[in-house]
Amino acid sequence: MSETLILHGMGSPNVIKVVIMLEELGLPYELRHVAVFSQEQFDPEFLKLNPLGKVPVLEDPRLGIPLAESGAILFWLAERGERFLPSQQPARAEVMQWLMVQMANIGPMFGQLNHFNLVPAGSEPYAHARYRAISQSLYRLLDERLQANEWLAGAEYSIADIATYPWAGYLERHGFDGGEHPRLVEWRDRIAARPAVQRALVRANEAFTEAANRTRRAASSADLDRFFNRTPSVPEKDYSAVKNM
Amino acid sequence: MSETLILHGMGSPNVIKVVIMLEELGLPYELRHVAVFSQEQFDPEFLKLNPLGKVPVLEDPRLGIPLAESGAILFWLAERGERFLPSQQPARAEVMQWLMVQMANIGPMFGQLNHFNLVPAGSEPYAHARYRAISQSLYRLLDERLQANEWLAGAEYSIADIATYPWAGYLERHGFDGGEHPRLVEWRDRIAARPAVQRALVRANEAFTEAANRTRRAASSADLDRFFNRTPSVPEKDYSAVKNM
Repeated sequence: MSETLILHGMGSPNVIKVVIMLEELGLPYELRHVAVFSQEQFDPEFLKLNPLGKVPVLEDPRLGIPLAESGAILFWLAERGERFLPSQQPARAEVMQWLMVQMANIGPMFGQLNHFNLVPAGSEPYAHARYRAISQSLYRLLDERLQANEWLAGAEYSIADIATYPWAGYLERHGFDGGEHPRLVEWRDRIAARPAVQRALVRANEAFTEAANRTRRAASSADLDRFFNRTPSVPEKDYSAVKNM
Repeated sequence: MSETLILHGMGSPNVIKVVIMLEELGLPYELRHVAVFSQEQFDPEFLKLNPLGKVPVLEDPRLGIPLAESGAILFWLAERGERFLPSQQPARAEVMQWLMVQMANIGPMFGQLNHFNLVPAGSEPYAHARYRAISQSLYRLLDERLQANEWLAGAEYSIADIATYPWAGYLERHGFDGGEHPRLVEWRDRIAARPAVQRALVRANEAFTEAANRTRRAASSADLDRFFNRTPSVPEKDYSAVKNM
């Protein structure tokens, strides 16, 4: 039986974090692009891997079932490889707390800001400003946390850092000033300098960027509506800006 | 040294799930109300427990540090008590996947729907309909999942069920039909029949309901703005409906 792991994904932060983890552990893996802009995540074949219709999904021969949710994938790989998640307390609990800060706060809220950044300027002023304010407080939380701690969960680089790093890359694109978040930027630079992270970004770029750009540019209105969860009960919105991003 | 655990919270789903877990494990615990509608979660004393300014926070003498994020608290208690999180694979990974479905999807998205349900009717039609559509697909996911599985992560009641149960109580309040989600309702009934769950709801009600109602009714506009993350950069919104809920 092959030992190669298969990661289904595209170039999004929740996928990139898993690619980084695979590189950090030195595991043999293959990346498979899921054309989310042409609704491939809703194909019956993909829904068998993840009924939520979302990437990433990891197929690991050692686990025997397809695994979804990037936080659960990082946790599985950390226990499998016995790295980046301490076995002793309270360090272990702190890593899980900061992993959950990313999964339950940073990811969902930055995701909403990305959504309302995309819709035509000015058309959703309250929602846009709401998610911008929440995101700002989360960036500030990270910067303050990294003032007293070298890594998010304390003294050791962990799956909490790996999970948060690709999301922290949005700081400037979300319109915030790197100079006002010096610890966050310095922490980002330290992670970016890791050879495993550099290899991960090259691999992800090769596997996903061109394929995703192609399907994104070709996406129909119906494709974008499905991608952005717009059903007939949701007022129409012009999502076409995503095609030229 | 006292063995009593202290849980800081109020009557929200993320707190209730931890109360249920404490009862399921038969641990001795004390509930402390945090007056979130009068900004007590932003007091320096509370921010030392959780810099994110959110409940729940657990103080467990065995852990030695205050622990935030309900998913991390459930995980810690499951490992401490060696229950509701299998040690064997792939069952363990499946529990973590469905715990993350709750933490990263159900909680944040139902939370946004609650927010836009609260603001004056019709004032945010796109955002309201967006979160209603996303929530609907999540309720459907749960119902479908429970068609083939007795519990969310498979054959055993786990922290994934405990985490999701208090959120699943919103089904009817979110305007969806219990009759169209028969497996979800049946699963909810099975959990509600557990003596530990019944004890938890009584304890939470005694500790939180009256105290929360009092501070909620007395909340000023500034209190509600802070509670709902409204900063001066976010257009004003009338949140006063929450005072009479």
